[in-house]
Amino acid sequence: MTTPEAREKAVLEAVRKRRERVNEAIPEELPIQRPERLYEASRYLLDAGGKRLRPSVLLTTAESLADVEPLSTDYREFPTLDSSADDSSGQPVETIDIMDAAVSVEVIQSFTLIHDDIMDDDDLRRGVPAVHKEYDLETAILAGDTLYSKAFEIMLETGARPERAVEALEILATTCTKICEGQSLDVTFENRAEVSPDEYLEMVEQKTAVLYAASASLPAILLGADDETIEALYGYGLDIGRAFQIQDDVLDLTVPSEKLGKQRGSDLVENKQTLITVHARDQGVDIEGLVDTNDVDAVTEAEIDDAVAELEAAGSISYANETAQELVEQGKARLEVLPENEARDLLCEIADYLIERGY
Amino acid sequence: MTTPEAREKAVLEAVRKRRERVNEAIPEELPIQRPERLYEASRYLLDAGGKRLRPSVLLTTAESLADVEPLSTDYREFPTLDSSADDSSGQPVETIDIMDAAVSVEVIQSFTLIHDDIMDDDDLRRGVPAVHKEYDLETAILAGDTLYSKAFEIMLETGARPERAVEALEILATTCTKICEGQSLDVTFENRAEVSPDEYLEMVEQKTAVLYAASASLPAILLGADDETIEALYGYGLDIGRAFQIQDDVLDLTVPSEKLGKQRGSDLVENKQTLITVHARDQGVDIEGLVDTNDVDAVTEAEIDDAVAELEAAGSISYANETAQELVEQGKARLEVLPENEARDLLCEIADYLIERGY
Repeated sequence: MTTPEAREKAVLEAVRKRRERVNEAIPEELPIQRPERLYEASRYLLDAGGKRLRPSVLLTTAESLADVEPLSTDYREFPTLDSSADDSSGQPVETIDIMDAAVSVEVIQSFTLIHDDIMDDDDLRRGVPAVHKEYDLETAILAGDTLYSKAFEIMLETGARPERAVEALEILATTCTKICEGQSLDVTFENRAEVSPDEYLEMVEQKTAVLYAASASLPAILLGADDETIEALYGYGLDIGRAFQIQDDVLDLTVPSEKLGKQRGSDLVENKQTLITVHARDQGVDIEGLVDTNDVDAVTEAEIDDAVAELEAAGSISYANETAQELVEQGKARLEVLPENEARDLLCEIADYLIERGY
Repeated sequence: MTTPEAREKAVLEAVRKRRERVNEAIPEELPIQRPERLYEASRYLLDAGGKRLRPSVLLTTAESLADVEPLSTDYREFPTLDSSADDSSGQPVETIDIMDAAVSVEVIQSFTLIHDDIMDDDDLRRGVPAVHKEYDLETAILAGDTLYSKAFEIMLETGARPERAVEALEILATTCTKICEGQSLDVTFENRAEVSPDEYLEMVEQKTAVLYAASASLPAILLGADDETIEALYGYGLDIGRAFQIQDDVLDLTVPSEKLGKQRGSDLVENKQTLITVHARDQGVDIEGLVDTNDVDAVTEAEIDDAVAELEAAGSISYANETAQELVEQGKARLEVLPENEARDLLCEIADYLIERGY
């Protein structure tokens, strides 16, 4: 059995190789064109980095479905499942530009980050100024709006058969709607004294997990898998996406600000509900009293340390970790619909990584 | 020959009847659901009124294409062009929910208004507070984002064949991208001393006219018209859309604030480029000196009156009117691809109305 460290290293290497391909594709799909300032602002966060976890999940799922050696197949001309079966028939191989789908999902993610940073008035993202700080409010709203429609344009370029393209666009559109609904719930929760763990998990599902679910199920749709496979992969994405967000909430408390790219504990300062605060409140912890200020620039590291110690004492951080672990196990079990292969193993490892990662 | 007044009355009546149908469809397509505050904010401007010109163009174009008596056919079960030809074959009639396309276009329009009002920090829209004033910035951004994806979801519900649905979504996505590009140019122009009439018209085409072009061409795509017809209708929309925006710029100067639903002359105060200011600057008018303040709340009616008199003296308002007139004539000529019928006449009258309307 591999150690968590060895596994993390292997996952990071696998993700890195796919990230490189995605990073090559982004400027191709989203060139800086007139009006330049708009497209520069649209590309700003995409170019600032990011692990590309969602496109990596998408590309790896495609590889597992097609039962090919990871990284051996051109993502721009990826054979459909029907065409693989038809190999002997002499029919031309039907291929999909699965990279377009991967870029589309990353573009949606970037659009939501730009608008979220405006809504939260966050200054930093990925260690660089948020788009509305680097540019201005107008440009940031418009850059997000541009990425939004570009994601649809790019998803329309995969070359999939019309009926599959339509299904892919339905997933993309409903995913975006759910992300907005989840973000709206998140904002509402900031002003509510009581939020139950179930309400929190529903919010996380909509705000974060649906984009993982789209990432995992889109290749199945585009390559022509059956409905059972599409649904199982959607469920895998929902599970690991929720686990990812829970882990993100843990990391917001435990990772130094420099490494995090933003102020540690900013969720607490901004009264964001997390599974941790929801649990702690149930245990009688005075969440509002944990940090005095509502200003991320004014909070001290010592205040955050004290708050974290109190949350640990209440068992809330362990509770979050355990919930994330359960979701990951549930998600991995759903991958049985895939053929046994290296790419499927990697999807399991990515799931584990999402909750074992240090930042 | 009918008088402009009689024509305006007939157009308004025709538009009113279609508006009533659109107004019934909006709550069906966009019900207030959880999270309620988000959907209430999304519906706020849609419910506040609006002439529904774009959906009226869309529905009337469908009627002309299908060569049916206006208002006689259920918009929810509108026969495709192929199925009409097949009437004698005993095949079941293939129908399209053309109302979905009409609502989708209006929803896109509403999304752009919400985000534009944030960018321009306008207080009023359609005589009611802008969404970011009635609610708040976060909710307004999110309401716009929700309408954005909902427009795609609704457009996917027309029941059109997949290849036609894909083409409709391509139009919708590229239209949204162009609207963002046009809005970005518009913002850029506010800080530029010199803008040529051609640059101005390019901006207007992207910011405003493409949504009219989409409205006119979408029924042709969804109902299965040929490419020549689709292109001609797209051109009609571009022409009348540009004329509409030019007339809007004229009306901003000439219609009383109460009737306009916002401060008269606000474009001048906010240094917005219009065809009028672009022309006047060419004629040596000191545009920046026309109004002293940059605050719409501080400007007086007398200042606006003086500015308008100077623009009239420079021939700039006449120039704008003539340009709009030429575009309308050009647009109407493109309608020759349609069968001669009452709906086609109405499309001509709508084009005339766009530049004859008093507000």
